[in-house]
Amino acid sequence: MFSVTVRDHFMIAHSFTGEVFGPARRLHGATYVVDLEVRRPALDADGVVVDIGRASVVLHEVLAALNFQNLDAVPEFAGKNTTTEFLAKAIFDRVAARIASGDLGDAARGLTAMKVTLAESHIAWAAFEGTVPGA
Amino acid sequence: MFSVTVRDHFMIAHSFTGEVFGPARRLHGATYVVDLEVRRPALDADGVVVDIGRASVVLHEVLAALNFQNLDAVPEFAGKNTTTEFLAKAIFDRVAARIASGDLGDAARGLTAMKVTLAESHIAWAAFEGTVPGA
Amino acid sequence: MFSVTVRDHFMIAHSFTGEVFGPARRLHGATYVVDLEVRRPALDADGVVVDIGRASVVLHEVLAALNFQNLDAVPEFAGKNTTTEFLAKAIFDRVAARIASGDLGDAARGLTAMKVTLAESHIAWAAFEGTVPGA
Amino acid sequence: MFSVTVRDHFMIAHSFTGEVFGPARRLHGATYVVDLEVRRPALDADGVVVDIGRASVVLHEVLAALNFQNLDAVPEFAGKNTTTEFLAKAIFDRVAARIASGDLGDAARGLTAMKVTLAESHIAWAAFEGTVPGA
Amino acid sequence: MFSVTVRDHFMIAHSFTGEVFGPARRLHGATYVVDLEVRRPALDADGVVVDIGRASVVLHEVLAALNFQNLDAVPEFAGKNTTTEFLAKAIFDRVAARIASGDLGDAARGLTAMKVTLAESHIAWAAFEGTVPGA
Amino acid sequence: MFSVTVRDHFMIAHSFTGEVFGPARRLHGATYVVDLEVRRPALDADGVVVDIGRASVVLHEVLAALNFQNLDAVPEFAGKNTTTEFLAKAIFDRVAARIASGDLGDAARGLTAMKVTLAESHIAWAAFEGTVPGA
Repeated sequence: MFSVTVRDHFMIAHSFTGEVFGPARRLHGATYVVDLEVRRPALDADGVVVDIGRASVVLHEVLAALNFQNLDAVPEFAGKNTTTEFLAKAIFDRVAARIASGDLGDAARGLTAMKVTLAESHIAWAAFEGTVPGA
Repeated sequence: MFSVTVRDHFMIAHSFTGEVFGPARRLHGATYVVDLEVRRPALDADGVVVDIGRASVVLHEVLAALNFQNLDAVPEFAGKNTTTEFLAKAIFDRVAARIASGDLGDAARGLTAMKVTLAESHIAWAAFEGTVPGA
Repeated sequence: MFSVTVRDHFMIAHSFTGEVFGPARRLHGATYVVDLEVRRPALDADGVVVDIGRASVVLHEVLAALNFQNLDAVPEFAGKNTTTEFLAKAIFDRVAARIASGDLGDAARGLTAMKVTLAESHIAWAAFEGTVPGA
Repeated sequence: MFSVTVRDHFMIAHSFTGEVFGPARRLHGATYVVDLEVRRPALDADGVVVDIGRASVVLHEVLAALNFQNLDAVPEFAGKNTTTEFLAKAIFDRVAARIASGDLGDAARGLTAMKVTLAESHIAWAAFEGTVPGA
Repeated sequence: MFSVTVRDHFMIAHSFTGEVFGPARRLHGATYVVDLEVRRPALDADGVVVDIGRASVVLHEVLAALNFQNLDAVPEFAGKNTTTEFLAKAIFDRVAARIASGDLGDAARGLTAMKVTLAESHIAWAAFEGTVPGA
Repeated sequence: MFSVTVRDHFMIAHSFTGEVFGPARRLHGATYVVDLEVRRPALDADGVVVDIGRASVVLHEVLAALNFQNLDAVPEFAGKNTTTEFLAKAIFDRVAARIASGDLGDAARGLTAMKVTLAESHIAWAAFEGTVPGA
C-alpha cells in the first residue's frame, strides 16, 4: 500500500459541553496541525499516489473554511462538541467530498483510504481514518 | 476508526544479556518518549474517544512506576531483556489493566485497540499494538 | 554561559484589532507551545542552572492562569493585541516575578537571563528574551 | 504486533516527466529522511524485533547506494518518475532483498511486514508498506 | 529583545568543488527547511515585531526564486560552492533587500537583526545572522 | 555570524547526589540528543564553516567515549553530579580539545564560538556555549 501525506494547520476558538471537559468548557481555542494521508494500492501512470500540489491546495481550502473561526458559531457544528477527534472526522468528510467532486483530479480516483490527524499540542493528537467513499 | 494519542516520558537504567547487544550489555540508560494511542470505531456521547485528561493521568502513573528505576533490579523483569519493544508491551499491558479496572472511566469501555510507542532517540523507536483485552 | 529549557503549552481564544491582522480580527484561538530558557554563567553547588522540577512547576502554574481563557476578557490585557510576541513578554514578566519572589528557590538567584518562546504552529513562533530583573 | 523503526537520510538530484509536476520537471533535488519500520507478531529469544544495529547498517547501506546521486542517470530508474512514493517502494524492495539474503541476521526471519516512509520536507512525506516477501 | 520566526522550504540540485566535499562533488540535491527570524527591541503600535503574513509571503517569494533550480546553473552563484551556510547568507541578503525596499511594510522599519537557518536533514543545519542593513 | 550544527546522541546511566534531585538520586539513565553548533564570522575558501563530515565524526567519537556508560563509575566525573548542563560543558570541553589538536582540520581554525545542547526529553534540554579556547 502506498501513501502520501501533506501537512497544514488552522486556528479556532470553541468551548465544550459536558463535565468531562473541566476547564475546557470555557471559551478557549487551539491550533490544529493537520496531516492528510491518502492511500492507494498502486501508483498511477505518472508514478504518484495523487497530485501532491492539488492535495495541498484542497487541504488548505478545506482548512481555510474553518481557520480563524469561533466553532461555537458555526451552524453545521451546532449541538456538537468540536473535539479534536470530531474535527478529524469533519475534515475527513470534507476532503472526501472534494475527491468525489473531482477536485483532486483523475489520479485521485485510485485512492482507497484516508487518514486525517489533528495535533492540538506537542503532547496530544487525534485522528480519523477510513475508506474513501465510493472507492 | 477514531484514535487519540497522548505523549509522556520516563528515564531508566538497565543492561542487556546476549551477544547481539554489543556495548549495550553494559549498564547504561535511556529516556523513552512514550505515545499511548487508543482507538474505537465511534465517539461516545460527549464526542470523545476517551477522557484525554484521564488518559494522560493513567499514562503518567504507569510511567511513574518505572521512572528513575534501574530496570535490572525490578523483580517483574528478572531474566528478561528490557528492550524498547519489550517495554512497549509491558506498558501496553499495564495500561490495559488500568482500563479493565475502570480507571479511564466509562468512555474507555468503547476502546477496541491500543498502540504504545517508545522513542529511545531521534533515530530509533519501537511499538506494540493490539486489541484491548475484553473489547 | 549555561542554559536550561523546559517546555509546556496552553490553549486560548482571542481576537486582534488592526487592519494588519486580516481574518485574525475574528474571534479565534491558538495552542501555544512554550519554551522557558533560563541562563547563568556558572552552575550552582549541585551542578545545576536551576531546579528543573521547580522550573517546570512554575512555568506550568504561570501558563495555567492563562490556559482555557478568552484573552479578550482578561482585564490585564484590555486594549492590547495579545499577539504571540506580546504573550511571550507577558509570560517572561510573570516568570521573572516568580523568581523575584523566591519560587524557583535559592539556585535561581544566579540566573542572569531568560528567553520565552511561543510556537503558535509548526511554521511560526515568537520569543522575548532579556536579563532577569535584579540579576 | 511489535515494530521497530530506524531513521536515516539521503540527498539526490532528479527531474520529473509529466504536466502534473509543473516546476518539478526541472532538474532539482531533495533530502529524504527515511524511516524503516519492521514488524513481527512476537519477539525473538533475545527480546527484540530485529538486531537494531544491523537494521541501521542495512538501511544506511541501501541509502548510501542512492546518496549524492543524480537519479536521472541511474539505469535502474530509466523511464520512471522517481517520486517520493516510488522511491519508498524502491527502498522497501532493496531492504527486502537484504533480509532475504540473511543480512539482517537470524532474528529477521520472523519479520512479517515492513513500512518505508520518506519525508521530503516538514510538510510532505510518502510511504510504502507491505508484507515481507517470503514471510 | 523580541523575535518572530516563520518557516518554509525549497528543493534544489547542485554539486560542490573541493576535496573536502567527497561524494558531494557529484550532482545531487537537497531540501532546505528555512527559518527566517527577525528581531527588534520593541513591538510596534499593533503589538507585533512584523506583519507575520507579509514576512511569510516575502520568505516564500525569496525561496520560490531558488525552488526547483539547479544551482550550478544560476549565474549569481557561478564559481561558488552553494553550501548550506552560503545559502543561508544568500537568503539573508535577499530578505534584507526586500525589507529595504519596503516589502515588509512600515512595521519592518524597526527590525534590527535577522537570522536565517537552513536545515538540510534531521541531523544537520546551518545559519547566518547579523544586523539588518540600515537598521 | 555563520554557524553549522550537527546532531547525534548517547545513552548513559547515572545517579545524583543532593536533595534537590528527589527520585533522580536513584540510579536511572537518559538518552541525550546532542546538538553541536560551531560558529565563525566568515566562511573559509571552500565556502564552509567547518568540514561538516569531520565535525560529525568528531562529535560521534566524543559521544562514543560516553555512550553505554554508567557515569557514576567514570573517574573523571567522580564527586560531580553529571546533570544535563554539566554534561553539555564536559562535551564542549572535549570537542574544544579536539579542535585544538587539529582533528577538525584547517577550516576549524576560524571557529570562534561553540554551543553544545543536550535534550534529555521532548520537554527539557540544557546547553553550554562559549568562545573556542585560543580563538
